[in-house]
Amino acid sequence: MRISQLAERSGVPVPTVKYYLREQLLMPGEATGATSAEYDEQHLRRLALVRALVEVGGLPLAKVRTVIEVIEGPGPSLFEALGRALAALPPYVGDEPGDCPRAERALAVLDQAYAPQSTGVMQLESALSALERAGHTVDDDHLRELGRQVHAIAESEIADMPHRGADEAIEYAVLGTILYEPLILALRRLAHQDLYLARAPAGDETDQRAGRA
Amino acid sequence: MRISQLAERSGVPVPTVKYYLREQLLMPGEATGATSAEYDEQHLRRLALVRALVEVGGLPLAKVRTVIEVIEGPGPSLFEALGRALAALPPYVGDEPGDCPRAERALAVLDQAYAPQSTGVMQLESALSALERAGHTVDDDHLRELGRQVHAIAESEIADMPHRGADEAIEYAVLGTILYEPLILALRRLAHQDLYLARAPAGDETDQRAGRA
Repeated sequence: MRISQLAERSGVPVPTVKYYLREQLLMPGEATGATSAEYDEQHLRRLALVRALVEVGGLPLAKVRTVIEVIEGPGPSLFEALGRALAALPPYVGDEPGDCPRAERALAVLDQAYAPQSTGVMQLESALSALERAGHTVDDDHLRELGRQVHAIAESEIADMPHRGADEAIEYAVLGTILYEPLILALRRLAHQDLYLARAPAGDETDQRAGRA
Repeated sequence: MRISQLAERSGVPVPTVKYYLREQLLMPGEATGATSAEYDEQHLRRLALVRALVEVGGLPLAKVRTVIEVIEGPGPSLFEALGRALAALPPYVGDEPGDCPRAERALAVLDQAYAPQSTGVMQLESALSALERAGHTVDDDHLRELGRQVHAIAESEIADMPHRGADEAIEYAVLGTILYEPLILALRRLAHQDLYLARAPAGDETDQRAGRA
């Protein structure tokens, strides 16, 4: 397809497509003339990825580039490549690996395998230390329960993971993270609404009450 | 306690405490002289809240002020007050209530009660429409499974919710959201690590493999 069709099908305006081409976030099309090129499904998929990273994830272009570089050259270890790609996604917790005593203790309570000093561990440390500073410590029973629930979510996500190539696996993990995190958080807030509305005494808040048709 | 002790116990530096006082994000202490005042546990709790909103949630001061105003004057409907306070937390999806066809359909599938046009519904619409744009539609079975898992998380969170006053309930919901969201997301990423390491063929990635001690 021509660049105009690529723009139309992807929902990314032509000037932005050209900008992504110049920035090498989108691979060049196959030249069909001095000023024209042919694009295909691969380009559409890449644009969907870049768009999700920029518009949903709010990633700065430098971080988008990191993700693309990992997808284009994952290297020998898929696990390590996944780690590098996911580390480019927010929340950013600093580049310096530091001690993560709270996270390591929590992961031992959860009996989960993990890569020490990976971004996930640092994000967990940061979340736990913020809870602690605010005087909300999470006791081990609650942590185990939450860990089990979140693990179940991850298991259902991974069920559909493609097994084709490293590049697709990384793309899937990145998109899954960027797109599923907002979904999980929105559902969490709405589950609280549902619980509140279910608990509210009859007649209370009727103006706000909605739905179960 | 004096302002210096308040600063020490809260971990917020004196100049920042003074700034929050001027901005009316922290209520004044009880005057004990022309230039001195006494602070108590209520001030400590408020500082923990403001700090979490600023440092963990990354809220701009105008949004922090909205949260504080709701806590200080919740009005007659707790549900509506909770909605206003939570709407001040990211992700921001625009102020204009719009149509939310995907979210409404999803909530019908989940059989959940909700307040139409609330921020949670708009956040869900935004998450689902981003998934759709990226070509990742969530089928109803997957949605029901995810909804059930997230609902279970919300149920365990709500179990400890204080029932004292509206202000405390709002404070608890706001802090819970700001502090638990990063925890849930960090645990999700680490659950994926755990699943990956559990599935990886023996001998693969041994350098990255870590500890179930």
